[in-house]
Amino acid sequence: MAALGLTATRRAVLWDEDRPLRLACGRALAPVEVAYETYGELSAARDNVVVLCHALTGDAHAAGHHGDPGRRGWWDTLVGPGRAVDTERWFVVCANLLGGCAGTTGPSSVDPATGRVYGLRFPPLAVADLVAVQRALLRSLGVERVHAAIGGSLGGMQVLQWLLDAPGEVERAVIVAASARLSPQNLALSAVQRAAILSDPDFAGGDYGERARAPDAGLAVARKLGHVTYLSEAGMARKFASVHDERVAPPMADARAWLAPRFDVERYLEHQADTFLDRFDALSYLYLTRVMDDFDPFADRAAVREAIARGPAPAALVLSFDSDWRFPTPHSRFLASELRRAGVADVVERELSSPWGHDAFLLEDAAYHATVAAFLEGAPIALAEGSPAGLAARDGR
Amino acid sequence: MAALGLTATRRAVLWDEDRPLRLACGRALAPVEVAYETYGELSAARDNVVVLCHALTGDAHAAGHHGDPGRRGWWDTLVGPGRAVDTERWFVVCANLLGGCAGTTGPSSVDPATGRVYGLRFPPLAVADLVAVQRALLRSLGVERVHAAIGGSLGGMQVLQWLLDAPGEVERAVIVAASARLSPQNLALSAVQRAAILSDPDFAGGDYGERARAPDAGLAVARKLGHVTYLSEAGMARKFASVHDERVAPPMADARAWLAPRFDVERYLEHQADTFLDRFDALSYLYLTRVMDDFDPFADRAAVREAIARGPAPAALVLSFDSDWRFPTPHSRFLASELRRAGVADVVERELSSPWGHDAFLLEDAAYHATVAAFLEGAPIALAEGSPAGLAARDGR
Repeated sequence: MAALGLTATRRAVLWDEDRPLRLACGRALAPVEVAYETYGELSAARDNVVVLCHALTGDAHAAGHHGDPGRRGWWDTLVGPGRAVDTERWFVVCANLLGGCAGTTGPSSVDPATGRVYGLRFPPLAVADLVAVQRALLRSLGVERVHAAIGGSLGGMQVLQWLLDAPGEVERAVIVAASARLSPQNLALSAVQRAAILSDPDFAGGDYGERARAPDAGLAVARKLGHVTYLSEAGMARKFASVHDERVAPPMADARAWLAPRFDVERYLEHQADTFLDRFDALSYLYLTRVMDDFDPFADRAAVREAIARGPAPAALVLSFDSDWRFPTPHSRFLASELRRAGVADVVERELSSPWGHDAFLLEDAAYHATVAAFLEGAPIALAEGSPAGLAARDGR
Repeated sequence: MAALGLTATRRAVLWDEDRPLRLACGRALAPVEVAYETYGELSAARDNVVVLCHALTGDAHAAGHHGDPGRRGWWDTLVGPGRAVDTERWFVVCANLLGGCAGTTGPSSVDPATGRVYGLRFPPLAVADLVAVQRALLRSLGVERVHAAIGGSLGGMQVLQWLLDAPGEVERAVIVAASARLSPQNLALSAVQRAAILSDPDFAGGDYGERARAPDAGLAVARKLGHVTYLSEAGMARKFASVHDERVAPPMADARAWLAPRFDVERYLEHQADTFLDRFDALSYLYLTRVMDDFDPFADRAAVREAIARGPAPAALVLSFDSDWRFPTPHSRFLASELRRAGVADVVERELSSPWGHDAFLLEDAAYHATVAAFLEGAPIALAEGSPAGLAARDGR
């Protein structure tokens, strides 16, 4: 624990009514509170900062545990003493994102102006707003420039947006399993998840915050579908190998029992949804999925090129996983080629091999972690997929 | 119309209280009413019968129209005078399946014993039960043996089950975009769809039949997700090409408008769900998806081999589409290899090329239709994918 240098989750208030945050939608928001954790020690020169940007349902608790080894951070396999993001070397910062529900201001926060939960009165958000909050938090810590920003999925989108908004602030960008523009299939799956929440009568137009019941049924359906998109077909086939045996059970005469979850994979989804309801909020789910839908940072290529030219241009590592069907490798290829086209010369794009689909970005994988570690050090990244030259896995577990 | 020989939808009562249908689950069901249509003329020798087995949400109305050209049958591109299933040659029969909601007995039918809608008191079903009804209908029409049975998706599952239950009754089996065993991913997507229905308060434990409100919200979510699985990512990208333009619209300040369907693909799903609610029932959706989940006809290989040995063995054509991610080609390969292993010597398995995913089995495609036509005639099927030797598309439109 000493070597990790984990602090308790802290809070910063970054904007107030006198100087509110101006959002991309044109509205102002204040106050903006941010929950964050740090790991490791900030160097005297303030030049060893690594920021982690979390995905849709993450939080500030990325690594270590707060006295409960069962509550390890969501990126604990990647971040820690001697790990790929080595906390003996880097000062690591992770904040709950704007619009979230784990300590940072979001649609389920209370609006101090009215004393009521915002609900759908909370303003629409964009990835650029999430990044504005990340940057302001860093400035409040006295950090003007970070060695690296790392993120997967929506986290990777934030890293990409950061590069484009302030290329001089990020030296090295790690963008994993992300997309620069959702496909119609992505949009459709996102829309189905929101429809499940919005059509739950307990959603109550977003004003369930002061009621006894939340739209748990709708959020559970959304989360189950989300889970299916995070796993690959092959990964699921490996994880739930007993399907065949389950099916040869004696036929059932009662339709309720017949329709109830019986297969391993059904019980798994039920369990995932149950634990999710304890920690996540339906309004954040709506807002943050919509933020992803709208993301299209290369829509105006001339503006992007101009922004990058103001650089110093950062280096970018763009990673994807071969079984990821949420954001398959063509998303990363497009993202990398647009970065190069915008003038970012040092872009390394790699597809890694994993059976675990989109979830792979959260899992322990020697080749993946070694690639990230090498990139953070400025070491050359090997050409061969999944086998960075001469680098062994750093994870000590 | 005369050449098509379309009849109005007819009804047959196939089992009654004195002689009920014995189901796979052990329960008895009576009466069983069946809605069906026929096209073409039954030959004097009764040797020109082709049966169409429909998929999850189909009905008896496969071809032609009943005076309303806007209401063409769901397989009208395949079936008709001069088409692949040529109604000038074949006597074509299509019945709404057991458990359905378009004229055949199902969970939304009224139980004559109680005068109430069955709801979840309706017994669990199996594909073998659906096939028992198809076979009984044929016998009631004086047909003991059919030239061919053709089905896609759940329809293909029925054709497969028919082969195994009564190999001597089907000369030629056409099984398209089907599966002999759902994958965990298939099961999971099916479970999410059912969860949306079951968690809708208007489902009311299945007893919504006598209430003012049906679980439309849940059924709409289920249908939207179903649609995403029927289309391919590439097909959606082609169909909804304007995503980029939609996204560069001015930012929105109101969260309700921001979250409302804005992208083409979202509006498409809304429309699909709306029209579906007018014609389909939530209980049938639950029952028939569960029937697919349980399907595993090769679980007992010894029994299957024994059944086939009682033959004459049929010939089987097993088709898949290269962009189908609902039942990708490995499902068809497995199905075909198990058929061969069970002793069916004449099995032709082909992957066809189409950008339209699972939906391709319902769409017009010259190579696909020519392959089916050739197989019905007993002509050799070319080896090359998607280019049956010397056969032009028969569809005149």
